[in-house]
Amino acid sequence: MGFHQIGERNQVLLSKIAINDGHGEDSPYFDGWKAYDNDPFHPENNPLGVIQMGLAENQLSSDLIVDWIRKHPKASICTDEGLESFKVIANYQDYHGLLEFRNAIASFMGKARGGRVKFDPSRIVMGGGATGASETVIFCLADPGDAFLVPSPYYAAFDRDLQWRTRAQIIPVHCHSSNNFQIRKEALEAAYKKAQEANIKVKGVIITNPSNPLGTTYDRDTLKSLVNFVNDNNIHLICDEIYSATVFKSPSFTSIAEIIEEMEHCNKELIHILYSLSKDMGLPGFRVGILYSYNDNVVSTGRKMSSFGLVSSQTQHLLAAMLSDEEFVDNFLAENSKRLAKRHHRFTKELEKMGITCLNGNAGLFVWMDLRKLLKDQSFKSEMELWRVIINEVKLNVSPGSSFHVTEPGWFRVCFANMDDNTVDVALDRIHSFVGKNDKKEDNITLTMPPKTKRRENKLRLNFSFSGGRYEEGNVLNSPHMMSPHSPLVRAHN
Amino acid sequence: MGFHQIGERNQVLLSKIAINDGHGEDSPYFDGWKAYDNDPFHPENNPLGVIQMGLAENQLSSDLIVDWIRKHPKASICTDEGLESFKVIANYQDYHGLLEFRNAIASFMGKARGGRVKFDPSRIVMGGGATGASETVIFCLADPGDAFLVPSPYYAAFDRDLQWRTRAQIIPVHCHSSNNFQIRKEALEAAYKKAQEANIKVKGVIITNPSNPLGTTYDRDTLKSLVNFVNDNNIHLICDEIYSATVFKSPSFTSIAEIIEEMEHCNKELIHILYSLSKDMGLPGFRVGILYSYNDNVVSTGRKMSSFGLVSSQTQHLLAAMLSDEEFVDNFLAENSKRLAKRHHRFTKELEKMGITCLNGNAGLFVWMDLRKLLKDQSFKSEMELWRVIINEVKLNVSPGSSFHVTEPGWFRVCFANMDDNTVDVALDRIHSFVGKNDKKEDNITLTMPPKTKRRENKLRLNFSFSGGRYEEGNVLNSPHMMSPHSPLVRAHN
Repeated sequence: MGFHQIGERNQVLLSKIAINDGHGEDSPYFDGWKAYDNDPFHPENNPLGVIQMGLAENQLSSDLIVDWIRKHPKASICTDEGLESFKVIANYQDYHGLLEFRNAIASFMGKARGGRVKFDPSRIVMGGGATGASETVIFCLADPGDAFLVPSPYYAAFDRDLQWRTRAQIIPVHCHSSNNFQIRKEALEAAYKKAQEANIKVKGVIITNPSNPLGTTYDRDTLKSLVNFVNDNNIHLICDEIYSATVFKSPSFTSIAEIIEEMEHCNKELIHILYSLSKDMGLPGFRVGILYSYNDNVVSTGRKMSSFGLVSSQTQHLLAAMLSDEEFVDNFLAENSKRLAKRHHRFTKELEKMGITCLNGNAGLFVWMDLRKLLKDQSFKSEMELWRVIINEVKLNVSPGSSFHVTEPGWFRVCFANMDDNTVDVALDRIHSFVGKNDKKEDNITLTMPPKTKRRENKLRLNFSFSGGRYEEGNVLNSPHMMSPHSPLVRAHN
Repeated sequence: MGFHQIGERNQVLLSKIAINDGHGEDSPYFDGWKAYDNDPFHPENNPLGVIQMGLAENQLSSDLIVDWIRKHPKASICTDEGLESFKVIANYQDYHGLLEFRNAIASFMGKARGGRVKFDPSRIVMGGGATGASETVIFCLADPGDAFLVPSPYYAAFDRDLQWRTRAQIIPVHCHSSNNFQIRKEALEAAYKKAQEANIKVKGVIITNPSNPLGTTYDRDTLKSLVNFVNDNNIHLICDEIYSATVFKSPSFTSIAEIIEEMEHCNKELIHILYSLSKDMGLPGFRVGILYSYNDNVVSTGRKMSSFGLVSSQTQHLLAAMLSDEEFVDNFLAENSKRLAKRHHRFTKELEKMGITCLNGNAGLFVWMDLRKLLKDQSFKSEMELWRVIINEVKLNVSPGSSFHVTEPGWFRVCFANMDDNTVDVALDRIHSFVGKNDKKEDNITLTMPPKTKRRENKLRLNFSFSGGRYEEGNVLNSPHMMSPHSPLVRAHN
């Protein structure tokens, strides 16, 4: 089957949504995905391929989950021990979600916040992954044209998730490196005022805490200031906390749930939390998205919208049992945090040795890497040039800051938790060679594959286990992503 | 937590979608669901409770699936045999879907149509159940305000699925009992013309084939005529074929896929099929919705929208293996059809003995029951009166024709495949008593619980197995439904 360009006739036939680019894929950002798809790194089969560092995926603790499942066969409806529940679970399609699933998720969310706050299972609303849950809350709050203020840099796929089908709009509130990209109250107020002057109805503020792509957490004062801001203006505050259990060093994570418990004058009906198990548990395939709202009407409406993206009852059933196991959860959260800390420490220390610094992060599955000094000039054109070299020559798919709507060129988001130690070695080697060459030839950053990578090949052949026996389907199985890695144009042959 | 009415302040804060009734739940139709939720039948614990006959669910063949799973532990990622795939599957989040899953679904769709037509896996687009897949195709085809012609009676939840968030609209094209509710070309043309005169852009026609709620299939001539109609007007034809494998007697099912292969002059880009495993396989909890489009751009756009409602990779993996097993599929389809035929035959024959006729159906999980002669007068007010008696006195949750937008009062959709034989016995007994009493006291159809039901209790205590050990959570686990059975208002205590 061949895909072709949309002809004039089809433009009449299809919706505006179908023919606009609100899906966000027609951007240079996705060239990186395509580059990876076309030439994916594999230690044995393709050691010179592109390493995927654009995928915010947590693969460091899946052995703990596998171990739990092995010991609890009754938790699955596909084992001899669990099959008796098959019929009733396979038929379960209520948009409220299994009661035991909601209970378990609420409990897990509390634990992921250090047990300092409790969540009410009756406020747990299911969505199809964080993607679906994010869209749900926008559908509940905004009419077409209404806007949300979003501190930038922000998660690239917000453009699609929050705007495309809802027809709402994002107004970026730009943050800067001068204060470590913290949001300033004045900037927020200025953006709000400007929107009002343009007759745009601002419905709320949306933050990711911990931040994607910064890998940092919001402090209490900033959170309180945000709550005051939305209260004063009677607008909403949506906190995307899908990275809450990825905090691996101090300062510790403070959820908006804690803040509003502490504040005396706060209209809780304005506060909404987005959650997911994709990052904290490393289970993106399971499509567990959660909208937790303190607003009864959003809970009620959002729940009706759950019908469009329910979590498979097979998956709900399994997770209900797993997340109800408090001992497992406590151990998982502690161990996951420890492993992330170790990986982050190693990765950033090695970069430091090469003279590359990152924003000082304490959370997330990525670092916000500062390559400003490698730019020809401080422009996004130069950022794209550098990025193309990194993709095409150094063969690392990292994500350019421009795709996160940052205003300063030269920053890159680099994911570090979606690969094993040996792949990290290869990536660091490549960066090392690249930086070394670049230091020598100041104005010439077009490099060929660094020789050190080749030197490592033998070692890798012996040690590498990632991807395992499924490599024959490698780029189908190892390259997925929330944001939509594969263009159907590229993959139409499947 | 208490839910309350939306106050004036919140009306400003929330979206129009959140405060309108586009979710379709504020209708008398849902009183039946609530009546069932509040007093669900159970043979031992609540033998006088409401029997759920408003749930189009196929529970007759789940033993075949359970048996297959028992024999194929490697198909699950939660067994010792399958755990090695856990990591790679749990991480799989590509919106294309697992290649093996798409292959298996395409193959299954072909078999469910008697092998007379092949489906291309590259055109399989995932959605969150049929609910999500239906919304997806509307988002791809229609702008807010655009309309689709839909023969009535039609599936009640189309009002929500196709209109609520997309802001498209349904224009019913009324069908009548005089020709067994078949759609007339003149009616279609008149509706189209009328819409055009009202400056409404008609984007297509939507049919369910087999029909919900009629339980009948479209013949070849009607399908050809529909294809000609959409071709002549350059609009779309969406065929919801989610009941395709529930056809249990002649005439056999003809898919639109077969028709367009036969027709010489047909713009295939106008044709889209909706599918699901909820009805044919009886797996509504697994949320497998499929959009199969012959339009490349709809495939491409719909696939990007899959991100909002991906099928859990755990579920994709299991079903990929199951539906690739041709021997299993062939046997399942044959046996499922046989069991549905038997149940349908028994149910309609017993009704006939009581003088109740149904539209002559050959498919589906329900009958379209004619109770016109029991109405006080031929009005929807009388239909509602009769329906309230059936719910409150006879204690059967059947669905009134008005909720399917039929224009003739007195028809009811009665589901027959979501219960075991003994529950069917109880339901038939109740109907029998009701009709008997009604025959005697012509103008008095307000009845108390029929005595025969009580007589059956002892037998049921011995034989009943449905619901099993989960009854303690009975109305959570046994009352789900695509349409949204539970109002959060009712269930807020969970």
